[in-house]
Amino acid sequence: MSFSPLIRQLIDSLRILPGVGQKTAQRMALQMLERDRSGGLRLAQALTAAMEGVGHCSQCRTLSEDHLCPQCADPRRDDSLLCVVEGPLDVFAVEQTGYRGRYFVLKGHLSPLDGLGPEAIGIPELLARIAAGSFSEIILATNPTVEGEATAHYIAQMLLGKGLSLTRIAHGVPLGGELELVDGGTLAHALAGRRPMVE
Amino acid sequence: MSFSPLIRQLIDSLRILPGVGQKTAQRMALQMLERDRSGGLRLAQALTAAMEGVGHCSQCRTLSEDHLCPQCADPRRDDSLLCVVEGPLDVFAVEQTGYRGRYFVLKGHLSPLDGLGPEAIGIPELLARIAAGSFSEIILATNPTVEGEATAHYIAQMLLGKGLSLTRIAHGVPLGGELELVDGGTLAHALAGRRPMVE
Ligand SMILES: [Zn+2]
Ligand SMILES: [Zn+2]
Repeated sequence: MSFSPLIRQLIDSLRILPGVGQKTAQRMALQMLERDRSGGLRLAQALTAAMEGVGHCSQCRTLSEDHLCPQCADPRRDDSLLCVVEGPLDVFAVEQTGYRGRYFVLKGHLSPLDGLGPEAIGIPELLARIAAGSFSEIILATNPTVEGEATAHYIAQMLLGKGLSLTRIAHGVPLGGELELVDGGTLAHALAGRRPMVE
Repeated sequence: MSFSPLIRQLIDSLRILPGVGQKTAQRMALQMLERDRSGGLRLAQALTAAMEGVGHCSQCRTLSEDHLCPQCADPRRDDSLLCVVEGPLDVFAVEQTGYRGRYFVLKGHLSPLDGLGPEAIGIPELLARIAAGSFSEIILATNPTVEGEATAHYIAQMLLGKGLSLTRIAHGVPLGGELELVDGGTLAHALAGRRPMVE
């Protein structure tokens, strides 16, 4: 079958969404056209505004259109704790556990084979943030994958001898998993059971 | 956790998509912002163009921004066959079976409890289309649900005595199912095994 050009274009464009294949994209396109055109237009506006307006928080590097994200702007959070994660979705996952310290968001993990070294993922900015802050503990919450572990160890090495407690989330996080996919209870447990990386 | 306002707005808007809950919407929003902003902007443009530009084919009533949809505009299709379905997604499903006759797309099915009578779902337009055409067979391919069956029977009653062969798709379509969710092979079988509705 053929769809008219505008519908075909919409279906193709919907496929950029994670987890959306051809059949799902068709259903989405036709259902919006049939049942919720004003919702479709609101989505278009929200997309444009976000894609053009959202940058990065100047302090933690998470996604935000404001100079400081809501977490960094909140004066009531614990300034002695810094949680280091691989991406903005991980902030969301850790936040669900009730954690109320500060964050630093890397651009993923070290991946020498892809040419991603410390500079590419923002480790200099992390070290500067730590130097400028008054943290007593750095929680290394990179993913429990080979690359995430290597990244955590690299950062721990860089911070040795600075009088910081360096911890790594531990129990309950399944090996090889993605932090952002772990349920809140498991992650809360992992966070509570964090242990020093360097004894 | 809190997202910045533009991100929150994008997440809320993504939830209008069928099958997209809060968690999926968050992943979609953050992944687009992280990895594919130009794709997000293209999607916004395609949404606006489709929501504002797509109307209905003047002949079969399916979604199309052109006066005639690709199916109606194609001169090589069989003008003796008319397949009546409940919505544009069903055209797509039937088309996958290799059917190459014409279509008429109702606005759903008769639903007296919701106040949806023959006029509301486009049955007068269907009868006008049949009167203006040169069909020998009308295939009633409404969904195999209680309402879809009732709709097929209502249409069959209206067409009695007009010298038309009235058929209903049959074998292979699971009772209570939605036509648009049936795989192509099953639907091809159901179409081949169609039987007269009025003996
Ligand atoms: Zn921040
Ligand atoms: Zn048409």
